[in-house]
Amino acid sequence: MTFNTLKEIYSIEATLPPNFKDFEIVGVAPLELATPNHLSYVDQKSYVKKLKDTKAGGVLIRAEYASKVPSASQAIITQNPHLAFAKISHAFKVDMFKTPSTKTPPNLGANVTLMPHVVVGEGVEIGDNTIIMANVVLGDGVKIGKNCKIYPNVTIYQNTQIGNEVIIHANSVIGSDGFGYAHTELGAHIKIEHTGIVQIDDFVEIGANTTIDRAVFGTTHIKQGVKIDNLVQVGHNCVLGEHSIIVSQVGLSGSTTMGRNVVLGGQVGTGGHMHIGEFTQIGGKGAVGKDLPPHTNYAGAIPAMEIHEWHHFLATLRRFAKKQKPSLIDKAKGLWKR
Amino acid sequence: MTFNTLKEIYSIEATLPPNFKDFEIVGVAPLELATPNHLSYVDQKSYVKKLKDTKAGGVLIRAEYASKVPSASQAIITQNPHLAFAKISHAFKVDMFKTPSTKTPPNLGANVTLMPHVVVGEGVEIGDNTIIMANVVLGDGVKIGKNCKIYPNVTIYQNTQIGNEVIIHANSVIGSDGFGYAHTELGAHIKIEHTGIVQIDDFVEIGANTTIDRAVFGTTHIKQGVKIDNLVQVGHNCVLGEHSIIVSQVGLSGSTTMGRNVVLGGQVGTGGHMHIGEFTQIGGKGAVGKDLPPHTNYAGAIPAMEIHEWHHFLATLRRFAKKQKPSLIDKAKGLWKR
Amino acid sequence: MTFNTLKEIYSIEATLPPNFKDFEIVGVAPLELATPNHLSYVDQKSYVKKLKDTKAGGVLIRAEYASKVPSASQAIITQNPHLAFAKISHAFKVDMFKTPSTKTPPNLGANVTLMPHVVVGEGVEIGDNTIIMANVVLGDGVKIGKNCKIYPNVTIYQNTQIGNEVIIHANSVIGSDGFGYAHTELGAHIKIEHTGIVQIDDFVEIGANTTIDRAVFGTTHIKQGVKIDNLVQVGHNCVLGEHSIIVSQVGLSGSTTMGRNVVLGGQVGTGGHMHIGEFTQIGGKGAVGKDLPPHTNYAGAIPAMEIHEWHHFLATLRRFAKKQKPSLIDKAKGLWKR
Repeated sequence: MTFNTLKEIYSIEATLPPNFKDFEIVGVAPLELATPNHLSYVDQKSYVKKLKDTKAGGVLIRAEYASKVPSASQAIITQNPHLAFAKISHAFKVDMFKTPSTKTPPNLGANVTLMPHVVVGEGVEIGDNTIIMANVVLGDGVKIGKNCKIYPNVTIYQNTQIGNEVIIHANSVIGSDGFGYAHTELGAHIKIEHTGIVQIDDFVEIGANTTIDRAVFGTTHIKQGVKIDNLVQVGHNCVLGEHSIIVSQVGLSGSTTMGRNVVLGGQVGTGGHMHIGEFTQIGGKGAVGKDLPPHTNYAGAIPAMEIHEWHHFLATLRRFAKKQKPSLIDKAKGLWKR
Repeated sequence: MTFNTLKEIYSIEATLPPNFKDFEIVGVAPLELATPNHLSYVDQKSYVKKLKDTKAGGVLIRAEYASKVPSASQAIITQNPHLAFAKISHAFKVDMFKTPSTKTPPNLGANVTLMPHVVVGEGVEIGDNTIIMANVVLGDGVKIGKNCKIYPNVTIYQNTQIGNEVIIHANSVIGSDGFGYAHTELGAHIKIEHTGIVQIDDFVEIGANTTIDRAVFGTTHIKQGVKIDNLVQVGHNCVLGEHSIIVSQVGLSGSTTMGRNVVLGGQVGTGGHMHIGEFTQIGGKGAVGKDLPPHTNYAGAIPAMEIHEWHHFLATLRRFAKKQKPSLIDKAKGLWKR
Repeated sequence: MTFNTLKEIYSIEATLPPNFKDFEIVGVAPLELATPNHLSYVDQKSYVKKLKDTKAGGVLIRAEYASKVPSASQAIITQNPHLAFAKISHAFKVDMFKTPSTKTPPNLGANVTLMPHVVVGEGVEIGDNTIIMANVVLGDGVKIGKNCKIYPNVTIYQNTQIGNEVIIHANSVIGSDGFGYAHTELGAHIKIEHTGIVQIDDFVEIGANTTIDRAVFGTTHIKQGVKIDNLVQVGHNCVLGEHSIIVSQVGLSGSTTMGRNVVLGGQVGTGGHMHIGEFTQIGGKGAVGKDLPPHTNYAGAIPAMEIHEWHHFLATLRRFAKKQKPSLIDKAKGLWKR
């Protein structure tokens, strides 16, 4: 596949360098993961300093930074590199099922149970004693280890990798596309195809109706012994440390990472690209707006602060509010009746 | 169908006007949508002024307002018009499937893929190149356009209308009944049958385990290019403007409306019947308690305020709280340890 | 089954009393529910006072409290009684399906509809006129009453008991395992098998993609006339009073109980083991951090307070914050622009 072809298909507007050498492209990737057969991109100033170490064959980039592309790579000049990158990603998307399927049988270990109406894609492997319950759907290339239980109506997208002794409760979705788009000048959003995977290690348990998104590149990683409750959202490229506990309705934005034995109370939410140190605990509804250190307790929805600071904050403000006199406006509105 | 019949079936307690003329009723509807073959209702004073423009054949109404019903309509006097309306709505409910189905084959475009265990109701239409993956269930009258992908275990209720190039991820539910009840004197709740639909326009993408409720009447409308993440709740009669972005675990109460290119961060919640202006953005966990103007930024869970006001509010209060001395009570409880 | 056998299987480290008499164990249970054929445990000082009334055949307990075990019971001394209890619970777990199933046909009432790809476990009973829609999965021992509608892709775990006139919307999960673990010294988590059930009484309606966990012992109980919206989490051992209304995305921690006609707004969350009095209402996003009295209104996410106190708290603080001058730091950061 050549860049000219991509240009034709996806109508990206770009200027090729005068001495452009065509090359085979196997995919798109961020600067640090790209090989000489990948296209990458620079969309903001902070990425420029990563250019010197990239091995990307080509880099989508604005004219102002083009001179910084190393000589082994080629600058492809475009006004909106992120948008061009998104459009080109569509050529490399991986489907959940090959359609129509050639229906090669899955590779099943000893004593595997497939209950009625289980649908299995190509190249699926399932380890000894694992039970796949009714109406579960496994996409192409899914691998599940030994002694696992996958409850009814679970959907597992293509290429998800699951270890041993894993339990996934009913109607959960593993490996759905992450929520990532580039934006056009007119305000429309172009999907960035997510070619990464989800990896779930041994002894993980996942509740009902929970969703874990695949990585845009690389891996969304649920490490050994993690326990996740119902209705939890794990965004693309999250890394959950060993034996962490995630209570129901927690929402982890993309690229949230955490050390081992973190505990997140119900309805906690995190901003993107934040790290929570090992053994740190966050109370229910806590809002994580910055990196948090290890071995501490946080609480508070506006946003989370250190737990003793939170107790003091709340007690002080309530005391303060009680002392204040109501305004005439509040009296007129009938808001103050005590 | 006559009102007398309905009275017999649903035991509503009502007084017919002395010169009541029976008429065919085809459904129930709000005052502004009702035709001469609909029943409507007035339950609160604010509805009375809408009476003069209604075309409803009959209006369920309390005695005190009955004289305001226009002469082309008929007043049907009852103590709890909303409750009577709810009971009568049951006569007009639309089921997900005709049972038993007569199994008329769906109307499929070219190159449509129906994977194993897909269940399709009556009168379903699916456009060219659309893929319906394993275990998806499509109710009667569902229409899906061209080049769509419906992932496994999705449920789409009756009469949902979906455009072209739409993606719906696994285990989402489109068109479930909205959450609406009338209340009896004894505190029980009588379901209001939702006979409206969900309409999803072109280029919409919907995440995994998301729920979008059908309208009570009319349409819950997801406009062109909207992107919705996982585990989002969209209540009945919401209208999402073109190219809006709804991050995971957002909850939109019934009749929330918004302009184009609105962005709602994770876990945002809205009160009912509120409008968010176009291009406005709300940070994660934001609580929307009033109409918000266009082209602004909001943040804050208690509830959302303008983003600069929020930053100032939070910084000021934290500074204030740090300056305060702990109370003797806090010291005794060991809450203040810093 | 003897305790020696359990020791061998689960490698719990325990010391048997010198005159230990072996006995048949039929399960594990808390002190107040245990019979002479159950094992129970004491893990904290507050449980010691319950010992005198227990009928448990054996009690897992630390050495320091062993002398308090009544003479009709036997003390089994171990360093981590909760962990030993969790390990032993595995011997008594109940599976969703007997595998392989002997496929005894379900006991169906008159005019029951089972749509395509419904999967029914052993000993299932379904009452007259009930409709089970496509791809629903019913575990062993599920009982469903008359005139119910179970929408597509719902999963109902083993032994769930459902009354008459119940509606469950698509893709919801009833009876999934509660979220309960004991913890090892190394920080791993050992599942506590949940052998309780979910009981849903008459006239209950449950939205789409909602999850209701089974009790660890006893019953998670949804009483008559309760209405639950979409994407709600109901933890193990919750009790929801008659005619309560639970709006979407509410999260109820384990053992939350409430009186009749409670109303919880969207995204409300409760801490564990709290009680909400009858007829009390909590506004959207409210955080319940303590028992709440009956017949009151609460609101506020930090956490919930009495509604007039909340209005005063918020108004006062916003007025206060507006009066404060910005700090030099805020000015430097550009946070204060008004």
